[in-house]
Amino acid sequence: MTFTVAVAGASGYAGGELLRLLAEHPDFEITTVTAHSHAGEPLIAVHPHLRSLRDLVLTETSPETLSGHDIVFVALPHGKSGELTAHLPEHTLVVDCGADHRLESGDDWAAFYSGEHHGAWAYGVPELIVGAGRQRDHLVGARRIAAPGCNASTVELSLAPGVAAGVIEATDIVSVLAVGPSGAGKSLKTHLLAAEILGSANPYAVGGTHRHIPEIAQGLRWAGADAVTLSFTPVIVPMARGILATSTARLVPGTTPEQVRAAWEDAYADETFVQLLPDGSVPRTADVLGANTALMSVTVDEAAGRVVVVTAVDNLAKGTAGAAIQSANIALGLPEAMGLTVNGVAP
Amino acid sequence: MTFTVAVAGASGYAGGELLRLLAEHPDFEITTVTAHSHAGEPLIAVHPHLRSLRDLVLTETSPETLSGHDIVFVALPHGKSGELTAHLPEHTLVVDCGADHRLESGDDWAAFYSGEHHGAWAYGVPELIVGAGRQRDHLVGARRIAAPGCNASTVELSLAPGVAAGVIEATDIVSVLAVGPSGAGKSLKTHLLAAEILGSANPYAVGGTHRHIPEIAQGLRWAGADAVTLSFTPVIVPMARGILATSTARLVPGTTPEQVRAAWEDAYADETFVQLLPDGSVPRTADVLGANTALMSVTVDEAAGRVVVVTAVDNLAKGTAGAAIQSANIALGLPEAMGLTVNGVAP
Amino acid sequence: MTFTVAVAGASGYAGGELLRLLAEHPDFEITTVTAHSHAGEPLIAVHPHLRSLRDLVLTETSPETLSGHDIVFVALPHGKSGELTAHLPEHTLVVDCGADHRLESGDDWAAFYSGEHHGAWAYGVPELIVGAGRQRDHLVGARRIAAPGCNASTVELSLAPGVAAGVIEATDIVSVLAVGPSGAGKSLKTHLLAAEILGSANPYAVGGTHRHIPEIAQGLRWAGADAVTLSFTPVIVPMARGILATSTARLVPGTTPEQVRAAWEDAYADETFVQLLPDGSVPRTADVLGANTALMSVTVDEAAGRVVVVTAVDNLAKGTAGAAIQSANIALGLPEAMGLTVNGVAP
Amino acid sequence: MTFTVAVAGASGYAGGELLRLLAEHPDFEITTVTAHSHAGEPLIAVHPHLRSLRDLVLTETSPETLSGHDIVFVALPHGKSGELTAHLPEHTLVVDCGADHRLESGDDWAAFYSGEHHGAWAYGVPELIVGAGRQRDHLVGARRIAAPGCNASTVELSLAPGVAAGVIEATDIVSVLAVGPSGAGKSLKTHLLAAEILGSANPYAVGGTHRHIPEIAQGLRWAGADAVTLSFTPVIVPMARGILATSTARLVPGTTPEQVRAAWEDAYADETFVQLLPDGSVPRTADVLGANTALMSVTVDEAAGRVVVVTAVDNLAKGTAGAAIQSANIALGLPEAMGLTVNGVAP
Repeated sequence: MTFTVAVAGASGYAGGELLRLLAEHPDFEITTVTAHSHAGEPLIAVHPHLRSLRDLVLTETSPETLSGHDIVFVALPHGKSGELTAHLPEHTLVVDCGADHRLESGDDWAAFYSGEHHGAWAYGVPELIVGAGRQRDHLVGARRIAAPGCNASTVELSLAPGVAAGVIEATDIVSVLAVGPSGAGKSLKTHLLAAEILGSANPYAVGGTHRHIPEIAQGLRWAGADAVTLSFTPVIVPMARGILATSTARLVPGTTPEQVRAAWEDAYADETFVQLLPDGSVPRTADVLGANTALMSVTVDEAAGRVVVVTAVDNLAKGTAGAAIQSANIALGLPEAMGLTVNGVAP
Repeated sequence: MTFTVAVAGASGYAGGELLRLLAEHPDFEITTVTAHSHAGEPLIAVHPHLRSLRDLVLTETSPETLSGHDIVFVALPHGKSGELTAHLPEHTLVVDCGADHRLESGDDWAAFYSGEHHGAWAYGVPELIVGAGRQRDHLVGARRIAAPGCNASTVELSLAPGVAAGVIEATDIVSVLAVGPSGAGKSLKTHLLAAEILGSANPYAVGGTHRHIPEIAQGLRWAGADAVTLSFTPVIVPMARGILATSTARLVPGTTPEQVRAAWEDAYADETFVQLLPDGSVPRTADVLGANTALMSVTVDEAAGRVVVVTAVDNLAKGTAGAAIQSANIALGLPEAMGLTVNGVAP
Repeated sequence: MTFTVAVAGASGYAGGELLRLLAEHPDFEITTVTAHSHAGEPLIAVHPHLRSLRDLVLTETSPETLSGHDIVFVALPHGKSGELTAHLPEHTLVVDCGADHRLESGDDWAAFYSGEHHGAWAYGVPELIVGAGRQRDHLVGARRIAAPGCNASTVELSLAPGVAAGVIEATDIVSVLAVGPSGAGKSLKTHLLAAEILGSANPYAVGGTHRHIPEIAQGLRWAGADAVTLSFTPVIVPMARGILATSTARLVPGTTPEQVRAAWEDAYADETFVQLLPDGSVPRTADVLGANTALMSVTVDEAAGRVVVVTAVDNLAKGTAGAAIQSANIALGLPEAMGLTVNGVAP
Repeated sequence: MTFTVAVAGASGYAGGELLRLLAEHPDFEITTVTAHSHAGEPLIAVHPHLRSLRDLVLTETSPETLSGHDIVFVALPHGKSGELTAHLPEHTLVVDCGADHRLESGDDWAAFYSGEHHGAWAYGVPELIVGAGRQRDHLVGARRIAAPGCNASTVELSLAPGVAAGVIEATDIVSVLAVGPSGAGKSLKTHLLAAEILGSANPYAVGGTHRHIPEIAQGLRWAGADAVTLSFTPVIVPMARGILATSTARLVPGTTPEQVRAAWEDAYADETFVQLLPDGSVPRTADVLGANTALMSVTVDEAAGRVVVVTAVDNLAKGTAGAAIQSANIALGLPEAMGLTVNGVAP
């Protein structure tokens, strides 16, 4: 069976990655790609890497151009998808890669975003531990899905096993992330120019202002945390893609390293797209480039009294577009891994 | 007055940076450069960037070739300088850029290094708060100086003001560093190949094994900490040089953001080479490339209950060779900044 | 139908890329992977990005371990495959990614390589114009194939259309290539260290010594050139993968820009993996990352009297492993594009 | 003696590099820095690497703010300096880093630029062979100087010795340059975003349209060429700074390799800032980072009948700001090398 697909906001980086992955999906057929300032141009003029899609032409983003598809992926800046998607039929599967439908709490929304809060949709991180089950369970049959923030899902997947198993505390988490600039979008800002980023490590949103903080807290509460306290610092480094998240949390007193390791092993033993490395190995972002894989290590630092979880993710793939497609597969009853790869492009 | 200078281990990255900086020093004259496998070659064959030193030829590293100089800078792998420098006259100023003479505690040495412990020399981080004074005081007139570990001094300078002022706790520090591969030396290892590092963020020494951990703890104890607990994770990122250290520590309950900021401002207001950025600005490694500057921001994250200090340092300059020369200036009674620059090469 | 596959030299970069692509091939089953110093290790310990192949273990490279497969891909340093492959049965499809079987001329071999010349196999650049046909014709049914040198095939594909159509001269070609260091292999040499390559552009083999020069001349003679004269300069730049070849040749007097463009359009209009960009567009290596695509522009510089062809190729994919698999598909009568993608991973 | 200095266009990359170098100049005192949209801001808010200049504040660019200085450096986009500098007194030394005063020929200007042609000033490449002398001779006492285009001066210096000595032909030159994106300025364009440039090699201005082409031809005519024909292709590669120019020209028949080498050796033996490497060595851009050095190799490819000259330059230093200051030193009768360094910051 073939599902027809539209991608709104196809000209950006998330849109491009959606299309790159969708082009490999055997059951999805891309029929419409929309954009704003590039409407009317061939898709390939904007995304010259998408050679197999060279017959597609960008059209205007509107309810009209998007309607009539089985699936609509939305990759718009936050604040843009709420109203637009309200016009789409209920039976259409809508996957929003923006932030508009991730947060349940209106207070969280108001504190970190602006404009109207549109409520939360089914959250597109299937492997996340939620209560006694997985977030996957909430995606089955869903018709409205919110793909996660790339940094947020990376940290959530890093720590949820320890929170759920009661081996780490959620009240004094510290996460520092090395991130590639594609995560900031195709945005004409001085600090995103190549000359500013080549040869440099550049932090931003230091001190608790990053918008993914409430999303992470929400995810870890779903995993079982009573309260979450998180120090979160992203650092842009000179790689086009990738997130390398180093997350540490205090070890619950009395916990053994074996119990820690078991918590993560149990959590992800059956997962295709979240893979725990053997003791002594650590992940690298190049190993997940273009893949739908979160590659993870967990280490107990007994002297520091902390568990250190390092996770590598491709921000555009598993962090955004891959998560969106994986979630769509689940929603539609397709094999979860359809059209996705676990292998990175390295070196 | 001109001091004659020898550099041992001149063929490596630290040796090269010493020479680049020494070449600009008005009172130092480089007369001898030594190496091992490259002995007999022109210096410029190994360091083609040192155009002004094209008449120098590398000789063997030995007590004989090093003796007879006013100053000897040693840039050898750890374990190599202890015996060698024992043969140098007491009145010669010896600055060791290796690890052999940094740690006071033989237990620390045994736990993180191997081989004989040679004891500690005057530690080459002049701005470090030590008791009621500065480490500078211990460098005046010294004839044996241990230049610091690049990551270590970066974290020490980041946190010492808060420890000394009693506004942060030293018992649950978390530091994550984005570092360039030159910090690992000119070493033929697969994980240091360009193809392994380009486009990737690669952690190492995860979980409390990095050798700079006891050095940081020692520095913070000097600054006033009773005990130090530190989770420390370095991540190699694709820039030749640079350290961007994100260090967080728990805020002492009841402390105000103003008190925090005042602690750092007071500590570094009179320092040339440690500069605190205004509130809202954050440092980038490109801004200190080639400079002897530690550029720093301090931010209070009240929701997380942590102070976040981000510091950018050039690992080869202020992190190693610049600190060595700055310390030598102090030891010899020269102006502390002689031959050094605060300005980075950016973009 | 499923073909069993062995990969010799699986631990290097070319071997890793072969495996990454083979893992996606619906009709190939990887059963054996061999190496030398890493024999006995899990494949994934050497190539942590190949998550789907985590059950494979590296064995010793020998005629015994390689025999009994339908297809053997060989990714060994030059000089190593000649003897080894002589022991494999005639009916086995052997694809050599090394240089041993590329050159027809023993004199060329002797002038640029060393050791015994093993003669030439069917050359794995299907799209190359050869006389009145294509190199593809020589691959049908072949059981011994030499995958091309990555730089060589890039320049051959760049210029063959103009040579064959008689619109450019082959006697004063100038090619300058920006190349990623993975093309030099996973080799422990100082000039391949990350600190040497980050932030720098580093030429090598300047002045006519590069081993791909006779291979390019051979390919352009096949395309119709009487004699080939080529100035060839590769420059390593800080990207893990990729070749951006700028090749210029003198315009045959009297030729119009339209005739030039027609030569290239006619040559590649029906090709999947060699794509000519519209007038005014130029290729970028990021657009072919991981893809089996050669992306090309052709421009007439009338003032200079030269045609400028710029071609982007992923040195490990279309430049080596992709060409090997594409050629194997043709040899075995499978669809030429099976298991390969035209889309790059960008940004 | 101290000269007062103003820098117009101080907020861009060329302006920042002028200031970085001027800050080290013992006889120059920076008193005014001007900009447009950043007027009113502290200089250090725009250039956080210029720590020693933290007391300077940007003012509006106007004849009024620039007048009253001994020297005015102008770093504005082309077309902006002609009118502005017309208002400055004749006795003021004005050094224009833009393109407005480089080309003697109004036809060249009209063909490659737009707007009014303001005529040519003394060209700021002191080492360039001009007739029987050097361009240096034309800079002595000059009060209007045009700093060169970075790519242009690199190619001119590469080839002038061979042209002047009659060992190469100027009628079929091919230059391909790997360049860092800082050469394109701090300009908000999509193709200059980090995500577009990291991991990629991106050509532009292919086929004879680059504005430095007529400037190179002019320089080589000064060196003795009757006519110049040049194929010129720049390729942006992922390094913040640097130009690696590979320039080839046909060997004049009958010329020996020794004659070729002698031409370049004779030309640059007495030069501080243009250095010829020994036979067999090739330059790298990292070796001249931040330096006022052009590092050069010359190689005869007898099989190709071409001389290959590879030259590394820092586009912002020797390519622009360093050349400007070196030329100003000459104009004012100061030591030519004052305030400039030959040593690069590597690795």
